[in-house]
Amino acid sequence: MIAEILSTGDEVLSGALIDSNSAYIAQVLEEAGLEVVRHSTVGDDLDAISSIIKEIGVRADIAVVTGGLGPTTDDITAAAAAYAAGVEMCLDEDALKTVENFFEKRKRLMNPLNKKQAMLPKGSECLDNPVGSAPGFVMKIGKCYFFFLPGVPYEMKKMLLETVIPRIYEIYGGIREYSIIKNISTFGLTEAAVNEHILPVIDEFGGIKFGLRATFPEIHVKLYARGKDQNQTVKLLDEACATIIKKLGYNVLSPEGESMEVVVGKLLKNNNATIAVAESCTGGLISDMLTNVSGSSDYFLFSGITYSNDSKINVLGVLEATIQRFGAVNEETAKQMAIGARKISGATYGLSTSGIAGPMGGTENKPVGTVCMGLATPDEVKGFTFNFNFLNRMMNKKIFAVTALDLIRKELIASHNGAALSGAYV
Amino acid sequence: MIAEILSTGDEVLSGALIDSNSAYIAQVLEEAGLEVVRHSTVGDDLDAISSIIKEIGVRADIAVVTGGLGPTTDDITAAAAAYAAGVEMCLDEDALKTVENFFEKRKRLMNPLNKKQAMLPKGSECLDNPVGSAPGFVMKIGKCYFFFLPGVPYEMKKMLLETVIPRIYEIYGGIREYSIIKNISTFGLTEAAVNEHILPVIDEFGGIKFGLRATFPEIHVKLYARGKDQNQTVKLLDEACATIIKKLGYNVLSPEGESMEVVVGKLLKNNNATIAVAESCTGGLISDMLTNVSGSSDYFLFSGITYSNDSKINVLGVLEATIQRFGAVNEETAKQMAIGARKISGATYGLSTSGIAGPMGGTENKPVGTVCMGLATPDEVKGFTFNFNFLNRMMNKKIFAVTALDLIRKELIASHNGAALSGAYV
Repeated sequence: MIAEILSTGDEVLSGALIDSNSAYIAQVLEEAGLEVVRHSTVGDDLDAISSIIKEIGVRADIAVVTGGLGPTTDDITAAAAAYAAGVEMCLDEDALKTVENFFEKRKRLMNPLNKKQAMLPKGSECLDNPVGSAPGFVMKIGKCYFFFLPGVPYEMKKMLLETVIPRIYEIYGGIREYSIIKNISTFGLTEAAVNEHILPVIDEFGGIKFGLRATFPEIHVKLYARGKDQNQTVKLLDEACATIIKKLGYNVLSPEGESMEVVVGKLLKNNNATIAVAESCTGGLISDMLTNVSGSSDYFLFSGITYSNDSKINVLGVLEATIQRFGAVNEETAKQMAIGARKISGATYGLSTSGIAGPMGGTENKPVGTVCMGLATPDEVKGFTFNFNFLNRMMNKKIFAVTALDLIRKELIASHNGAALSGAYV
Repeated sequence: MIAEILSTGDEVLSGALIDSNSAYIAQVLEEAGLEVVRHSTVGDDLDAISSIIKEIGVRADIAVVTGGLGPTTDDITAAAAAYAAGVEMCLDEDALKTVENFFEKRKRLMNPLNKKQAMLPKGSECLDNPVGSAPGFVMKIGKCYFFFLPGVPYEMKKMLLETVIPRIYEIYGGIREYSIIKNISTFGLTEAAVNEHILPVIDEFGGIKFGLRATFPEIHVKLYARGKDQNQTVKLLDEACATIIKKLGYNVLSPEGESMEVVVGKLLKNNNATIAVAESCTGGLISDMLTNVSGSSDYFLFSGITYSNDSKINVLGVLEATIQRFGAVNEETAKQMAIGARKISGATYGLSTSGIAGPMGGTENKPVGTVCMGLATPDEVKGFTFNFNFLNRMMNKKIFAVTALDLIRKELIASHNGAALSGAYV
């Protein structure tokens, strides 16, 4: 069953508004077992809308169209549908009731303009809008059933789930397929490397569609499975997931697509551990990421953003002699920062960064992209040095921050799960 | 000049990813004077991509296509373009250099898979990608010039502005009108309020196109003027800008569209002042924003992210009695935090936040969205309380952070520029 999505409106076309409706509709249609093959956007223009409706009528079986059902003069989707189908517009009694009910329920006077919303193409069927003034409608144009919905996300979503999907099942009841999506988040391998690892799995599981998505600096592996039998489809997808997780091992963050900060938060919480951070070059990004997770106050105690050397010395207790001898961007300094953050806060772990995010501040020995990190555990303190260079201050900050969080993630897995590392994910 | 936008990729098609690229591209193309008439999305499918390319080749003069230029097997946009144009794929020396340079600069080994990225349709011309491994390309198919760009937003935006737009001007140079864009960033008024303020200006300056763009929580006013005479166009736009700045007064951050953190950084630098921050509910976001600006080490000294009460007491010297009596979310506590951050670092100003970002942690007296702030200056310390609620932890954190930075912005303008506030912008 081929489906297309059309959103109408000058705001979306001009980019003033990002079209989030189409993504939502695509997910719902895919979950209902339809195959979405195209999204389109056109402006509030009679010719543009009617000609794309005619195109879709030749290609698709089901189309969901949003926008342009309001009371104002630039709302012309119904007229465009009538024009595409070669029919007249006429007053629809059901639609009029929907509009009148809307105003009655809210004890508001109906603006005469709103009566326009009850004018629908002849031969179409009104779709009740339980939460807004604009009724939708469904009609067949070409070989395709078109569902016309308002563009307001809240109204559109309610009508899509409560009215459109049941109607699609009615129309094509017999042939529904199940479809499931899985998202495995990874860190530490390039997109090309992840791809190479999963190539044999793609060959092995022919019935599953694989895709990679870079959410810098994480790489997410997406698996889509479809089938007539639900149990069989779930089982196949689970097997493919397990195979990929085995291949990627340590680099897998989460089989549920969770981000680094969510995974680190869960590991800390599950192990009754707390963390304190000392950030220099990352400038607060590690703390910001950790505290974006609701409930992070359970394990995140303190962070010192010690940009100046003075604050490294005064707040974290880094030795002046160390900075003088080795500089701020140095493993020894980073180790002392981590120890200081841990000590000052009483946290289980102390994590630190000191590096050069750029674009200025690099030297021959320590070019932009150099970063030193410290990880203080209850037993020891470790130092690390990395070299990245994404030629962009914010990307460097991001890769530094996620790499630092990866140190604590691996530490937590290794110390609490012993050698059974891959077991942490399955 | 008719333009279309095509985004490719299963993630966008399936709705796993919201397509924000197309909105951005639409704005840039419109600003360059093109008429965008349609956006489309298709999946990673050779037939789907090549057939829509052929359709667009009949309809449009310029098309921007994003996605599918990566090194992996599902990246097939170049092959689809070749198929649509009826040409072979061949190794492009310029493209190969781009890919090799990318890895060389980063001192990373090139994966053999990446060589695939240098295979381009015969007759196409490589477009250098200064920030990623995937080169783009331009080729004429049908009557339309297609610009193929990577889907990674950062790379796409850079290439669109630096390479594609100048090339479009080259191609259609003869009929070009002079066009200029101004972007005034504002904070503190709703979109509707900004709109109301500028309505009379829109009437006064009929030849200029106005638009509002919400970059939460900032509202940007965009002015777009076109004309055959450069001097006249510039003059008209400058006049309109000055009128708007006068209307919006204090709420104008920058007539150059600069963000809050850039504006605060400049004000600190120009006044030889430094800042230290004490963050609780904002969790590092203020520091992260400030340090996203290159050169921020000149004025940003220290931030203490004191999530726990212990760290507020131990690091910042907040009195235990104050927290016991008033709680952490309180103006008195916030004032002591600001004083502590200033003292510990020797900064000119200390700024603090303590509040409830949610979704948990709210009470009847202090619901989610409540935030107290402190601002310690060389002369005094001020306390503030605000109530926001965007029903979303990250949006609350963001509005808290930008509101806090706005306190220091206004303080700097008032104390250093005296009463001549509007003069700060013109």
